[in-house]
Amino acid sequence: MTLRVGIAGLGTVGAGVAQILRTKGEALTARSGRNIAIAAVSARERKKDRGVDLSDVAWENDARNLISRDDVDVIVELIGGTDGIALDLVEGALRAGKHVVTANKALLARHGAALAVLAEEAGVALKFEAAICGGIPIVKALRESLIAYEVSAVRGILNGTCNFILTQMESSGRGYAEVLAEAQSLGFAEADPALDVSGLDSAHKLVLLTSLAFGTAPDLDGVAITGIEHISAADIAFAAEFGYRLKLLGVARHLGDEIEQRVHPAMVPERTPLADVEGAFNAVVAEMGEAGSYFFEGRGAGQAPTASAVIADIVDVACGAGGPVFGRPARDLVPPKRIAPEKRASPYYLRFDVLDVPGVMAEISRHLAEHGISIDNMLQRGRSPGEAVAIVMITHEAPHVGVLRALKAIAASDNVLETPCMIPMEAP
Amino acid sequence: MTLRVGIAGLGTVGAGVAQILRTKGEALTARSGRNIAIAAVSARERKKDRGVDLSDVAWENDARNLISRDDVDVIVELIGGTDGIALDLVEGALRAGKHVVTANKALLARHGAALAVLAEEAGVALKFEAAICGGIPIVKALRESLIAYEVSAVRGILNGTCNFILTQMESSGRGYAEVLAEAQSLGFAEADPALDVSGLDSAHKLVLLTSLAFGTAPDLDGVAITGIEHISAADIAFAAEFGYRLKLLGVARHLGDEIEQRVHPAMVPERTPLADVEGAFNAVVAEMGEAGSYFFEGRGAGQAPTASAVIADIVDVACGAGGPVFGRPARDLVPPKRIAPEKRASPYYLRFDVLDVPGVMAEISRHLAEHGISIDNMLQRGRSPGEAVAIVMITHEAPHVGVLRALKAIAASDNVLETPCMIPMEAP
Repeated sequence: MTLRVGIAGLGTVGAGVAQILRTKGEALTARSGRNIAIAAVSARERKKDRGVDLSDVAWENDARNLISRDDVDVIVELIGGTDGIALDLVEGALRAGKHVVTANKALLARHGAALAVLAEEAGVALKFEAAICGGIPIVKALRESLIAYEVSAVRGILNGTCNFILTQMESSGRGYAEVLAEAQSLGFAEADPALDVSGLDSAHKLVLLTSLAFGTAPDLDGVAITGIEHISAADIAFAAEFGYRLKLLGVARHLGDEIEQRVHPAMVPERTPLADVEGAFNAVVAEMGEAGSYFFEGRGAGQAPTASAVIADIVDVACGAGGPVFGRPARDLVPPKRIAPEKRASPYYLRFDVLDVPGVMAEISRHLAEHGISIDNMLQRGRSPGEAVAIVMITHEAPHVGVLRALKAIAASDNVLETPCMIPMEAP
Repeated sequence: MTLRVGIAGLGTVGAGVAQILRTKGEALTARSGRNIAIAAVSARERKKDRGVDLSDVAWENDARNLISRDDVDVIVELIGGTDGIALDLVEGALRAGKHVVTANKALLARHGAALAVLAEEAGVALKFEAAICGGIPIVKALRESLIAYEVSAVRGILNGTCNFILTQMESSGRGYAEVLAEAQSLGFAEADPALDVSGLDSAHKLVLLTSLAFGTAPDLDGVAITGIEHISAADIAFAAEFGYRLKLLGVARHLGDEIEQRVHPAMVPERTPLADVEGAFNAVVAEMGEAGSYFFEGRGAGQAPTASAVIADIVDVACGAGGPVFGRPARDLVPPKRIAPEKRASPYYLRFDVLDVPGVMAEISRHLAEHGISIDNMLQRGRSPGEAVAIVMITHEAPHVGVLRALKAIAASDNVLETPCMIPMEAP
């Protein structure tokens, strides 16, 4: 019995999916025992050359028309967006008893729990391997493999654009703006890079990883988000001197009955798996209690990696793979109990740009001590007295709010030239 | 409807599986929608304390009796061994229409194709996530995720005992025998370490990875196997000087229509994913054409990691996940066309222990040149003239058989004190 696919959205990924279904049909049928055919497609522009001939396939100008087509069993949603057509389409498809495969992290980060309930009530699949880390099978790993013991933490480099920018800044010593412009010209960053560099895209993915790992409802509002826009070449160079690399991490941790979810630049110790992730690659570490740590790395974006994840989901649907959308029944998913901000603590990297005058170090030290922050390791590059100098330090474990308060007090000093920089140190 | 499990073998892993099924039943039911219960067990000794009370469960002294039990739907084979009871049990269970979950790599490396045919004819599952790299979900990844493009190569650190020994030799500078003895006393190596250190265990796993990656029948005879028994502390130290780490790798590559399968110590460039795998960890790199490289790392042995893989397979069976055993219909699996030995080529690390007398370097160079081997990088530690000295070099790409012949000629020289050492250099 043929599985009939309707593809909504024929951008890079959609065209890749169509190409694979057209050229590798036999191989995919061997894997699932079923013929898989494209029944209908929808996109903005019909005439565009997408490297695959779809002239024999039904065309819908409005993707929502795929919902009522009797010749479509599974809808592949590659339109994007948190609401609008993508939401209408996925909601309508599930209500109509059609399977859905999507790469839409923004949609699921907001509406994932409700959509999972719809899917499970209708007895159809809602699959989203392509929504997190492209070709890395991390959704399947968390949903189907790392399940015998409780997962206590998930850490990941979830955005290839940010990792590309940070590793380029590191290898070239250049500043953020210059490297971003280069990344845009190379196609590694969007014309409007805000979604990536702000950390929001990583947060979308982290929200879904959190639900898969801990069995909670997706909760975007629970994520503390800091992007990479304010990272300086100096901080990356100082990190190296201390034996760390700067990475934008998404971190979700189970702490007692509370859950911490955060996206921020972090100092990661050199020669650990996450520190070694280069360029546009993505990676995830999952800690599973007695069974130890598991590390996954690969291409997180681009046509082939993302299309390969979509194809794997379609073949899963063809194989009749069951089980709840997020690994636990959707009706039981509740939003995580968020950790109170005052419980957040870690060692911190701090940088102060100061005038090199007598007493400045005493002033900084006093404010830190007043907030219970002690220094583990410090570095000051000497220049001429009276000139600007960077004081860089790594603290012992310190409360996040205490560091914020101390830095506010320090920033008020006339001897402090710029807003001090704080970056958490993250375990591997 | 309850899924009724029969466990054959209650060693470390079997006891772990029983514990998880007993203590996390509710969580596993939430994932699969089915109750999962232990219906019967079989092991050598009934009275032994295994940390889990199984007194209310049916007991079979002969595991093969599980085959005919009407109250068992899935048999978990944890007996081990290539033939004998394990083979009788798995074969009988599949013929009787029972699902099988096994951790038995030796069995599948020899009988995998025939058993897969039985499973697919009976319409039951034969699952073996625990047979390769313990808790790392590499079977599922190759079988269900990395499927849209052809996988062209799989490389892995497939044996934790060997990797533990090599990393200990590296960090301590001690010799193989001493570190092996320590590994045995710590429980990281068996009393009879032959299966591990000879490379045979890695070969069993490589054979299964090859079938999953390339759609060929398991073919143990096609694997060229070299173990770690002859690795010296000196080679590990020289490797570091050249910027490499010594790892026991399993490698399967598609070269045209031929397939290369080999297990051997290899020099891996530092700061690449496989080089950074420490201690008893396992890891696999899979190259999937346009979609790039994917890297998986985690615990490859031990109770919790291996039991977690078995549990994932049982839950998969409960979810009704389908598809062929090795990802392609078993009837279509054919043994790989093996690459001709004379086509094998790579750069090599060579070490010669020689008397430091005039002409010795000229003699070595001449033999290498005669076999078309050119030197990329060389190192000689000076000692007193007339004493023993090591000459170490890395060659450009050279044919394996040419290197063997050159080394045989060189070994015949009176100035060469020990059998020369050759270790292939492997890409990351």
